[in-house]
Amino acid sequence: MVDIPKQYKACVYNDPGKISTKIETLDMPEPGPGECLIHLTHSGVCHSDLGIMENSWASLPYPTQPGQVGGHEGVGEVVKLGPGSENKGIKVGDRVGIKWVSGTCGNCPQCMAGADALCPQAKVSGYYTPGTFQQYCIGPVNYVTPIPDALSSADAAPMLCAGVTTYAALKKSRAPPGSFVVISGAGGGLGHIAVQLASRGMAHRVIGIDHPSKKSLILDSGAEHFISITDHDDKTIGEEVVKLTGGLGAHAVIVCTASNRAYAQAMDMLRFDGTIVCVGMPEGEPKPIEKAFPQVMVFKQANISAVAVGTRRDAIECLDFAARGVVKVHHREEKMEKLGEVFQEMKDGKLIGRVVIDLQ
Amino acid sequence: MVDIPKQYKACVYNDPGKISTKIETLDMPEPGPGECLIHLTHSGVCHSDLGIMENSWASLPYPTQPGQVGGHEGVGEVVKLGPGSENKGIKVGDRVGIKWVSGTCGNCPQCMAGADALCPQAKVSGYYTPGTFQQYCIGPVNYVTPIPDALSSADAAPMLCAGVTTYAALKKSRAPPGSFVVISGAGGGLGHIAVQLASRGMAHRVIGIDHPSKKSLILDSGAEHFISITDHDDKTIGEEVVKLTGGLGAHAVIVCTASNRAYAQAMDMLRFDGTIVCVGMPEGEPKPIEKAFPQVMVFKQANISAVAVGTRRDAIECLDFAARGVVKVHHREEKMEKLGEVFQEMKDGKLIGRVVIDLQ
Amino acid sequence: MVDIPKQYKACVYNDPGKISTKIETLDMPEPGPGECLIHLTHSGVCHSDLGIMENSWASLPYPTQPGQVGGHEGVGEVVKLGPGSENKGIKVGDRVGIKWVSGTCGNCPQCMAGADALCPQAKVSGYYTPGTFQQYCIGPVNYVTPIPDALSSADAAPMLCAGVTTYAALKKSRAPPGSFVVISGAGGGLGHIAVQLASRGMAHRVIGIDHPSKKSLILDSGAEHFISITDHDDKTIGEEVVKLTGGLGAHAVIVCTASNRAYAQAMDMLRFDGTIVCVGMPEGEPKPIEKAFPQVMVFKQANISAVAVGTRRDAIECLDFAARGVVKVHHREEKMEKLGEVFQEMKDGKLIGRVVIDLQ
Amino acid sequence: MVDIPKQYKACVYNDPGKISTKIETLDMPEPGPGECLIHLTHSGVCHSDLGIMENSWASLPYPTQPGQVGGHEGVGEVVKLGPGSENKGIKVGDRVGIKWVSGTCGNCPQCMAGADALCPQAKVSGYYTPGTFQQYCIGPVNYVTPIPDALSSADAAPMLCAGVTTYAALKKSRAPPGSFVVISGAGGGLGHIAVQLASRGMAHRVIGIDHPSKKSLILDSGAEHFISITDHDDKTIGEEVVKLTGGLGAHAVIVCTASNRAYAQAMDMLRFDGTIVCVGMPEGEPKPIEKAFPQVMVFKQANISAVAVGTRRDAIECLDFAARGVVKVHHREEKMEKLGEVFQEMKDGKLIGRVVIDLQ
Repeated sequence: MVDIPKQYKACVYNDPGKISTKIETLDMPEPGPGECLIHLTHSGVCHSDLGIMENSWASLPYPTQPGQVGGHEGVGEVVKLGPGSENKGIKVGDRVGIKWVSGTCGNCPQCMAGADALCPQAKVSGYYTPGTFQQYCIGPVNYVTPIPDALSSADAAPMLCAGVTTYAALKKSRAPPGSFVVISGAGGGLGHIAVQLASRGMAHRVIGIDHPSKKSLILDSGAEHFISITDHDDKTIGEEVVKLTGGLGAHAVIVCTASNRAYAQAMDMLRFDGTIVCVGMPEGEPKPIEKAFPQVMVFKQANISAVAVGTRRDAIECLDFAARGVVKVHHREEKMEKLGEVFQEMKDGKLIGRVVIDLQ
Repeated sequence: MVDIPKQYKACVYNDPGKISTKIETLDMPEPGPGECLIHLTHSGVCHSDLGIMENSWASLPYPTQPGQVGGHEGVGEVVKLGPGSENKGIKVGDRVGIKWVSGTCGNCPQCMAGADALCPQAKVSGYYTPGTFQQYCIGPVNYVTPIPDALSSADAAPMLCAGVTTYAALKKSRAPPGSFVVISGAGGGLGHIAVQLASRGMAHRVIGIDHPSKKSLILDSGAEHFISITDHDDKTIGEEVVKLTGGLGAHAVIVCTASNRAYAQAMDMLRFDGTIVCVGMPEGEPKPIEKAFPQVMVFKQANISAVAVGTRRDAIECLDFAARGVVKVHHREEKMEKLGEVFQEMKDGKLIGRVVIDLQ
Repeated sequence: MVDIPKQYKACVYNDPGKISTKIETLDMPEPGPGECLIHLTHSGVCHSDLGIMENSWASLPYPTQPGQVGGHEGVGEVVKLGPGSENKGIKVGDRVGIKWVSGTCGNCPQCMAGADALCPQAKVSGYYTPGTFQQYCIGPVNYVTPIPDALSSADAAPMLCAGVTTYAALKKSRAPPGSFVVISGAGGGLGHIAVQLASRGMAHRVIGIDHPSKKSLILDSGAEHFISITDHDDKTIGEEVVKLTGGLGAHAVIVCTASNRAYAQAMDMLRFDGTIVCVGMPEGEPKPIEKAFPQVMVFKQANISAVAVGTRRDAIECLDFAARGVVKVHHREEKMEKLGEVFQEMKDGKLIGRVVIDLQ
Repeated sequence: MVDIPKQYKACVYNDPGKISTKIETLDMPEPGPGECLIHLTHSGVCHSDLGIMENSWASLPYPTQPGQVGGHEGVGEVVKLGPGSENKGIKVGDRVGIKWVSGTCGNCPQCMAGADALCPQAKVSGYYTPGTFQQYCIGPVNYVTPIPDALSSADAAPMLCAGVTTYAALKKSRAPPGSFVVISGAGGGLGHIAVQLASRGMAHRVIGIDHPSKKSLILDSGAEHFISITDHDDKTIGEEVVKLTGGLGAHAVIVCTASNRAYAQAMDMLRFDGTIVCVGMPEGEPKPIEKAFPQVMVFKQANISAVAVGTRRDAIECLDFAARGVVKVHHREEKMEKLGEVFQEMKDGKLIGRVVIDLQ
């Protein structure tokens, strides 16, 4: 039996709209039916957390409320099971993770088809559901993500968001082993994981595209080729991919960057029957993918697909790659008290790699 | 041994750019290595033939030459094999078809991946290759389409273009049996075949969309629901599909009509994880599919695919459905001398169903 | 709020090993966390129930206990939700079904991969879990099967076992629409549903094999061809299938009958790259599938697959076919008091079609 | 224009039934329609060549004729095109390969479905078709295998048989990246290539099984685990695989060895929903795969598949892996005059790795 305190520390958005990360003491919650109580030790900090805190992310329809606990890349240990949570594969002492989608109904067509994020009952950790910037949190035993023994909690945390999303995107591309996969935005938080998963985890030949400052990170992550966006215009960048792929173009282009221009460039990089996978969501007024002309689609037999954060199963499979050392997220650890500074760094574009908050 | 005359009748475009269908007498060609000589008895007339004859089809890069024999839906009997054509599965006396793509190299990545139409060596019947508006023509034994015994030549001819294309589109949609498939332009030459193949051949629940004048053709073709484009605007037409599909939207939308507006409407009709398949090619300046926003793609996990006329294998599979009576093309027969009038009718938009030329 | 009595009637196996179906009055159970209470109105009677009651089914490792409530094809109305069962897609008043696998952990690799029946925590209705031969029963809200409005409860009940299993088998065969599918044992409880699903639901061309007494049922169910097992020996029955399929053999053979001989015959019926799907489980000492020689497998590129009862998702999809009238189980209704007689009829091999118990 | 001599050297089986490899001078053949003449420089020597020469391979129905030129792993340069061979993607000067299946009709259902080896018109190089133990040979331009520039002819030769077969087997297993794949007979001619392709080429976690003498070859080839067949009996070898795979068993077992016992062991190694792929063909009277019980298949939802040598497309894809250095066949080179000695060595079981004949 684990000793559970009556109260614990949490970081709340006390003044949403601004960077506002107040440490508060909260009463310990009780896990309900089908739930478990998790003693969190680590949480990654994601760009979406900043957007939620500042109410700047247009695709989220409701304003963030004062007192919201943010965070959606949490890892900790199960310390208590709610009623009816026994014999469900999770027990006290297990390490588990909480991710962006932190609970689903399990019953709707979307859930049944493996489209967890589209479940109408889906809960989003750190947005209208208490998140992972706290020492304890509640999760449903049938949806928390088991963490493999071989993976440290700090290493696991950022995989729960960037890892699962890019893994789902690579699966959706249906690109076979040995095929060329372009990662657009290959040096970013999502991109550098996508490069590792694609090259080392799934045996693709990766072409990474990004600013020249990201070149060594991208090549170290396993890319076979690097293309600098500063060396090319919209026309020559496609030609470069075609050249590097022996004249045919890439089997898949995973657009990890939130840029309409990256989407517009993707079509020319594509091999016949190839697939663009949408991951990054450009800000501002939505614009159609610029070269998604029916005529071009037909003459290339092109495909466009998309993923929204991946499923719980994707998360579990993806953590297995991390546990085997195939993929590693570059991160540094910080204490909970530094969360505000971390957000400021993020906002100023100064953050390199991921930050993981040590919640102890 | 079949008796082969020295000369035969052909209909040539004597004045491309205009409707110009002169009957000429041509010398009998000799089948080369790997080829066979076919005594054609029937040829369908397709809208693309009109476009090629009149040089009005922008996606074809070269002007049609005077003397071109048009046509790409031909059926006839093999009367002679060229050198090296023995033991290739086609023998004298077999009925075979010639389709839009009438020959490929069989060797390139496109051919090997089942993307026949994208083979750089692909030949197009009736455009820079003598077509099927003639009594004899040459075809490669490894690419002509065997016609099943149970299918008449007149019934087979139009399947070779409209049939194979829509069949390929339905396959590419990956929609499972019992799922909802919207056919946009369901009463057209492609559309009414798509409805039959989808409903009777592939067990889909079909929603046909078109002008109200096409309602009975569409329902007779097997559609479960008909939606009139005159009853709806761009917003309500999507809502209607969602309503008819129990609130989720359709698994696939096959856009058979060459209209940017139809493409723009398709996204709202789509179920999560559903697929739009591009078939129709809008004329004029290409425009991106209007709601192919990365944001919408992601939130729906939507897919867009496309086909270019299908493969030889698709043709053979598709003819099997026709031979079993699952799909029937509405057509009337005309003599070769009437081809000019048929084109004029087509141009005036007065043609109902398909015309098949009796070449005897 | 539904009025729930304190007690209700159930039929229990009072003397397992024999036919023993005593009606008893039981206390109303309370739904636990994540559970719901269902007022059952109908339950199908399956051959497996007989096996469980009589302890004659070798593959079940534990003896049935006196007092066991049997049955695993139950349909009724949700009358109460346990704690934590709200907002999970099931509400009071919904009609739902209980099937063979009546609950799973949802958490194990098997559950995540859609192999519900292989979940180590799987519960089997009517065997060490109270079943559906009673007026009330408990089910997990995340695993009961919603019944479509258009389907009567009596029609739904037998679909929950025979329907889902054969549907899963047909999906696993990967046979494309228009392909030949042999149903071995096509006139049986599983077989006649498989014929309907395959032909009307999935657009296959069905060849049904069984005793001549089943011929009209099989042809009425949608089979294109019937083969009588009394007209053929092991050699000619395969030849007959090859003949009926144009010389190539069938894309799939679904062995619905529990006979080693049927398995032995299947390989010769198979088209190159075709698939045998194992459904029926022969009694007695297990014997390998007789012609599953590596040499024959290689020269045919043959495939053998198997299903164990299908998933909850299969059940939901399958009920949709039934709700649309695509598939209908032949059945008659009987009162609970007649269950013993029904089992005796079943044991004597006199039962034609399915019996559904009216539990009111 | 290449200078082609009038005569050239070939090694013929002058006394089939025995090791009999006479060097003869043959007249230069002329490429027919659709064919090309290839100046061969290298040919691998495969165990099947020995079987054909000695008429000891029961699955080949006709006795080998005196004068047969053997060999089916040939690489050389195209020196002349036959009539009608232009513009088919192969030109004079290209390096190409000849493999076991050296020509197909391209027209039959088998060809169209990618089952080249099952084409009724398939030609087998070195058996009733002149093979590759000669300096010149004829091949169909639509079926020879293009050799990538980066791959030496000596390295390419053995890939044309062992490479393509194991690659096809791995594809057929449908095992996803990161999954466990057992290679049974992992140190053999097929096995050590399978290990390399699976681990380095397709990102699988490989467990190699073989005699302890093969341990280092197997681990060097990329296997994560080695299991010695001398350390285990039929029961414990399956348990060992289950243990190494975290308790679930392997996603796929590729049986590369021609042993009924290896097939019998495979079922217990298999994860639920896993797949056994048959490659090796045991000699002697065919025996069914010993644990292919319908009952076990059902309770495991197991799958069994098989491949027969793979397709031309498989060959091309597989050579791409070799060209990138992912897979390397261990071989030594010998002159044509030594072929008899090589066969003797092979027969005596003394051959380590592959021999490639230098035909210059």
